[in-house]
Amino acid sequence: MSTNSSTMPMTPPNELFNLDNPVFCCYLFWATVLVVKMLLMSLLTAVQRFRFKIFPNQEDLFFKNTEVQFNDPHVERVRRAHRNDMENILPYFIMALIYISTNPDATVSCNLFRVASLARIVHTLVYAVYPVPQPSRIIAFGCMLLITFYMAAVVALRTLSFV
Amino acid sequence: MSTNSSTMPMTPPNELFNLDNPVFCCYLFWATVLVVKMLLMSLLTAVQRFRFKIFPNQEDLFFKNTEVQFNDPHVERVRRAHRNDMENILPYFIMALIYISTNPDATVSCNLFRVASLARIVHTLVYAVYPVPQPSRIIAFGCMLLITFYMAAVVALRTLSFV
Amino acid sequence: MSTNSSTMPMTPPNELFNLDNPVFCCYLFWATVLVVKMLLMSLLTAVQRFRFKIFPNQEDLFFKNTEVQFNDPHVERVRRAHRNDMENILPYFIMALIYISTNPDATVSCNLFRVASLARIVHTLVYAVYPVPQPSRIIAFGCMLLITFYMAAVVALRTLSFV
Repeated sequence: MSTNSSTMPMTPPNELFNLDNPVFCCYLFWATVLVVKMLLMSLLTAVQRFRFKIFPNQEDLFFKNTEVQFNDPHVERVRRAHRNDMENILPYFIMALIYISTNPDATVSCNLFRVASLARIVHTLVYAVYPVPQPSRIIAFGCMLLITFYMAAVVALRTLSFV
Repeated sequence: MSTNSSTMPMTPPNELFNLDNPVFCCYLFWATVLVVKMLLMSLLTAVQRFRFKIFPNQEDLFFKNTEVQFNDPHVERVRRAHRNDMENILPYFIMALIYISTNPDATVSCNLFRVASLARIVHTLVYAVYPVPQPSRIIAFGCMLLITFYMAAVVALRTLSFV
Repeated sequence: MSTNSSTMPMTPPNELFNLDNPVFCCYLFWATVLVVKMLLMSLLTAVQRFRFKIFPNQEDLFFKNTEVQFNDPHVERVRRAHRNDMENILPYFIMALIYISTNPDATVSCNLFRVASLARIVHTLVYAVYPVPQPSRIIAFGCMLLITFYMAAVVALRTLSFV
């Protein structure tokens, strides 16, 4: 709880958010991977829309003899996966960023970033790219969820007196 | 507009994002509460799905004699509340974080964090947990909205010359 | 790759996230504009709901002789635009924020913030306010997408050793 300046003399608490802090650098790398992964979901949705000619707006009808259509299972599956990303990865971005301000142990925190990010990549693969029987998706989903809850517990305990 | 170093000599502007700044600590605590609240919406959706056996994917059919189903009112109500959270809380996370960089008054900013967070907890209770007649939900929704607009005004006025 | 302290002596890397850094100030201003723009989408959805009397919850039926209704094209168009905002602007907020930690060139980064933000305002206008034939929306969408990818490439290359 109070390992700030004793265990990591190189990065005092007021310089945690810069490139000299390996924990912050590790966060930067894996947050970037997840941002790119999320944006690729938009492109994957577009691919499915063109493949099955399912467009939700009148001005998007690029092909002759098509009409505005909704609820195509191939498109909706990718959109559900994308929405699940927003529900989980976006809060994680903030949670992990503020978790760094507690100056956590470098090995623990870097491995949490790695596992959480890889779990979400697996989640996308088994949900949107190639559907796989459960509980593969539940496990991938649970990894980041539990890691975010752990970070939340660390931050909340450190800042409980500011309630 | 230029109260940075004169009114709060203990936290000069270059050390606002660390645990020595009580405003940042208060943000950390309440942002953590909201992250946990948002993630619990995923679990609440899962509870409703299992309770009413409404699953949107073929691989999720854990029970015999069930089919893929959508648009169940009990599930959709929780999903609408969750989407409303994403629409409002996620921009608030960024807005409140960058608002701290303007070195706001500690009492004002901490109370804004508290009111905004508690309002969103009330919003979830009256929307997704136990539906209550309006305007309870509109008021809870408006609290965080107005607070975010206020923070936006403060930040925009301070940084207007960088347009 | 290593232009930290030589090109910008006024803002050493450990003081990037404060109001002395013009790049951070420019981010603050345009992030604030985008937060306000996103929140206005909620109000635009509400306007459409009242105009066409389309309410998704029993407790929202403010008018006599109305019933719970979904899938109205006027409301759904605004909601799709809003969801697209969440899919693109929220990851951009994090990406642009951590991109600042690499101490990018002030002219380049400020102009990226400006173009990305203005492109999303155009996106909203041609999607939700006054539908315009394609490819206007695709171009507006692509601007922020490419800028976010560029920032991701810069950050990933700088932090690649922390994989």
